[in-house]
Amino acid sequence: MDYNAEALKLHSMQRGKIEIGTKFVVNNEDDLAVAYTPGVAAVSMAIANDTSKSFEMTNRANQVAIVSDGSAVLGLGDIGPEGAMPVMEGKALLFKKLAGVDAFPLCIGTKDPEEITNFVKNIVPSFAGINLEDIAAPGCFYIEEQLANIGIPVFHDDQHGTAIVTLAGLINALKITGKNTESRVVVSGAGAGGIASAKLLYDYGFKNIVLIDSQGIVSPNRSDLNSVKQKALEFTNQQGLDGTSADAMKGSDIFIGLSLGGIVSQEMVSSMNKDPIIFAMANPTPEIMPHEALEAGAKVVGTGRSDFPNQINNSLAFPGIFRGLLDAKAPAVTTSMKIAASEAIASLITEPKEDLIIPSTLDERVVPVVSAAVKSA
Amino acid sequence: MDYNAEALKLHSMQRGKIEIGTKFVVNNEDDLAVAYTPGVAAVSMAIANDTSKSFEMTNRANQVAIVSDGSAVLGLGDIGPEGAMPVMEGKALLFKKLAGVDAFPLCIGTKDPEEITNFVKNIVPSFAGINLEDIAAPGCFYIEEQLANIGIPVFHDDQHGTAIVTLAGLINALKITGKNTESRVVVSGAGAGGIASAKLLYDYGFKNIVLIDSQGIVSPNRSDLNSVKQKALEFTNQQGLDGTSADAMKGSDIFIGLSLGGIVSQEMVSSMNKDPIIFAMANPTPEIMPHEALEAGAKVVGTGRSDFPNQINNSLAFPGIFRGLLDAKAPAVTTSMKIAASEAIASLITEPKEDLIIPSTLDERVVPVVSAAVKSA
Repeated sequence: MDYNAEALKLHSMQRGKIEIGTKFVVNNEDDLAVAYTPGVAAVSMAIANDTSKSFEMTNRANQVAIVSDGSAVLGLGDIGPEGAMPVMEGKALLFKKLAGVDAFPLCIGTKDPEEITNFVKNIVPSFAGINLEDIAAPGCFYIEEQLANIGIPVFHDDQHGTAIVTLAGLINALKITGKNTESRVVVSGAGAGGIASAKLLYDYGFKNIVLIDSQGIVSPNRSDLNSVKQKALEFTNQQGLDGTSADAMKGSDIFIGLSLGGIVSQEMVSSMNKDPIIFAMANPTPEIMPHEALEAGAKVVGTGRSDFPNQINNSLAFPGIFRGLLDAKAPAVTTSMKIAASEAIASLITEPKEDLIIPSTLDERVVPVVSAAVKSA
Repeated sequence: MDYNAEALKLHSMQRGKIEIGTKFVVNNEDDLAVAYTPGVAAVSMAIANDTSKSFEMTNRANQVAIVSDGSAVLGLGDIGPEGAMPVMEGKALLFKKLAGVDAFPLCIGTKDPEEITNFVKNIVPSFAGINLEDIAAPGCFYIEEQLANIGIPVFHDDQHGTAIVTLAGLINALKITGKNTESRVVVSGAGAGGIASAKLLYDYGFKNIVLIDSQGIVSPNRSDLNSVKQKALEFTNQQGLDGTSADAMKGSDIFIGLSLGGIVSQEMVSSMNKDPIIFAMANPTPEIMPHEALEAGAKVVGTGRSDFPNQINNSLAFPGIFRGLLDAKAPAVTTSMKIAASEAIASLITEPKEDLIIPSTLDERVVPVVSAAVKSA
């Protein structure tokens, strides 16, 4: 199937993917007087006297805002808020279909981190959670930091969704290869996904992580690091290594690619320790194509694409994460919730194989186990 | 029926009145690849290259934001954004039920007019229209002025919805009483609804309008007028009258009440010209109860309530107005659209009677005629 042609056709025909649904029947004047004036005034006053009742008497408790400035959409880059909308509607569709969450996309016309922060603070009274989406680094880190204590959970999917699913796949890949948290990990890409994945792997127990960007190893000896990369030195490159990407790969065990298509050569894979794990998740072109990586000695290969085995895709995480957050009325997302979600996703593959380390997005078992894990964490 | 008790019960049971609906079916990996990655990238790029396509390939063309700060909700006053939500969900319900418009409520946590203005500017890429709602005067006037040219129509329902429906009722009341645009009109209340109604009546042709507030007649000799009331002198009180509310009523023909319950006495009604028209629209308690007004000589009486004849209610206007605006892809709301809407609503009552000057909100003929009128204007 030509997915692009089919997508263009169907999106034009249906004019997008979501709409507003209604939960009250209004057929006569009595119905109207209960749903709207004058009856609604009693509901408004009950909430005004105790705002926590907005979680009981409006749709708020099940409502998530998907907020994006369109500055880092898929692998397409800064395509603006209008261009981002089809992706956000797609997320809203999956939120509803997979987890029964009512998510509404708000693609906004500012890229200023301060203004995005204010924007999110202002919409808190209408929602029970905020899914930040496709906001470019380093702004996304600042925004998330500013929004840590707004009373409802804020989750930048490009950071934490990616990190959770990466760790889930890795947990099963370790079982196949006999590797463990002592193994050396190279994380390629110091954007939202790369930094957050390195951090979550560190929190999970990996202590030997090297982060690389377009200039090579992120090291304390470099003078060109932004504040986010400098902060990443707290949980990466504890040995103070310097060098190129190829230097980083030599003798390593695991490659986590969240960077650019085609930047990993077969030589680089061959220079790694025996039975390396390669997650080449750049979209649409992986850092190295799966068959090339396997030829060069890789034991387990995952990508971001649905047309190869082991698709490591955010959609495995966000619906269940938010279902759990909303059900638990959690005020924030914690590290233990993220790790619990990763372990829950991994647990669905009882016998991991080289070409089966992670379940499918449409596997109906995913949301229940992820949301339960988040709730109990 | 006890509307309050029933409303509290039903809102708690259903947890609000709206939800997200989906327009795509996602049952397998192919569906997923068309609705989401990778197929969605083609749709995003098509829109990024021509943002007008967001009106064709997403739900934007049918999407309206209902934005409120909760500062002037119904007759309840400043009850905050959480308290406002049941009213906004009610509007969203009516938007969908009556006009097929997908309206989403955004109750926001700021009352600063500058910040509300920025907020609305930032959400433009996601919507085809903005319904401002229950924002207190005089801030609402400033906000609307700042948002006059943002490319999509902005409509403060408490101003213009009220004005349109008031004029609609008045057009038919004139026919019954033999009064006309030369008649003297007293508009009580210098908030959003009062000022906008006075302005629309003026634009329709009424030239003898006196605005009153809690201090009496709004006159050029007063030193306590805010800028909005000062500006209202351009279309009210052309004779430069001074005095109390009672002075204003003496010898007038039409009373438009958008103020406070109980402020009009039977003596005041008796002091008006023969066969006066009384619209006592304060909620929930009218400026004067209908039976009292009739006793005192009123010929036609309307209120904001559904339990009296002649309910003059915004719900008659906003669904059809936005249906027309969206269908016409109008960039703004014009005065001629508003007058056309009033005339369309009035036209549905072919033989106006004292207790039948305006159709019911649930009359299925309303939205088609209003939207058609807006479109052709």
